[in-house]
Amino acid sequence: MSTEKIILGIDPGTMIMGYGLILQKNKDLDMIRMGVLKLNMFDNQALKLKRIFERVLEIIDEYHPDELAIEAPFYGKNVQSMLKLGRAQGVAMAAALYRGIPIFEYSPRKIKQSITGNGAASKEQVYLMLQKIVRFAEIPDYLDATDAIAAAVCHSFQHDFGDVDTHKVKIPRGKKSYNSWASFLENNPDKKL
Amino acid sequence: MSTEKIILGIDPGTMIMGYGLILQKNKDLDMIRMGVLKLNMFDNQALKLKRIFERVLEIIDEYHPDELAIEAPFYGKNVQSMLKLGRAQGVAMAAALYRGIPIFEYSPRKIKQSITGNGAASKEQVYLMLQKIVRFAEIPDYLDATDAIAAAVCHSFQHDFGDVDTHKVKIPRGKKSYNSWASFLENNPDKKL
Repeated sequence: MSTEKIILGIDPGTMIMGYGLILQKNKDLDMIRMGVLKLNMFDNQALKLKRIFERVLEIIDEYHPDELAIEAPFYGKNVQSMLKLGRAQGVAMAAALYRGIPIFEYSPRKIKQSITGNGAASKEQVYLMLQKIVRFAEIPDYLDATDAIAAAVCHSFQHDFGDVDTHKVKIPRGKKSYNSWASFLENNPDKKL
Repeated sequence: MSTEKIILGIDPGTMIMGYGLILQKNKDLDMIRMGVLKLNMFDNQALKLKRIFERVLEIIDEYHPDELAIEAPFYGKNVQSMLKLGRAQGVAMAAALYRGIPIFEYSPRKIKQSITGNGAASKEQVYLMLQKIVRFAEIPDYLDATDAIAAAVCHSFQHDFGDVDTHKVKIPRGKKSYNSWASFLENNPDKKL
């Protein structure tokens, strides 16, 4: 039986929001689109939130994703920044909830773990591994966009989907898992950064 | 020139969301409706956020408020609870932003200050003063509902409206201001809790 679904990944931030869409067809993953929404030109927080909500709704209405995967840190520097981050996440989530799209959230560590086998992998390591998984040619302007794709890919790797409070991490299906970047490079001597 | 507007007040929480609508006609304030949305029966956070968004949108579409006043604490116990609170605020704000309604936020201290003249007033003191201002007869089941009304009243008391990041506090227009609850009671010997 063939299963096909579109996953929207979002990395919500208060300065830049990354987003990415992938098509999951059985075990294959293809990139549909990725991009960033720059928010740093707005000094009014309400305008930032409005732009996030509208953009996520636009993306949903254009691509009709089946599920939303969101990168959600659970620890931050201070309560102030966490409140702002929570609001940015909240408005992005509201757009999905409004369209009846289920939300799945993953911590940055779990996304890295799921994609590279190492929860402490660098952004570049995640990017390099992502390129092998979803085969995107162009180099994105902002790594926030690949972070969003990473969230979507991480979600597609989960077998059992829980609710927004579930954060289980599974080894990618049908993909060889590497315990470290070193062992990955060892097995892929052609890959050098 | 007669000015009339409807202000929606919201006190978003992760267990209970209070809401209240007031009609401001020149300097008079009248209660339209107040209530609470109980969220503690949902253990799934996504469902909570979905309910908040849907309910706020319902209220907006039923009463067409001109402005949203939101009670927003800026300090919390820990980053975890602030993230959750930020999300609850974010989805409530998203509903207003979606309908193009401007948002104004006030800290609990500023709301109390604005209504009672004392930023450290108790919930009961705020309630008693509110009763004089908006004349609501019934005793609400939850003080979260009056907290929401308090946010709306606080907003109606502001002369210069700023954006979401502005938190100026003014003494109520045309209302006598009391420096303390003691002085309020002194001037209103008939009022006893």
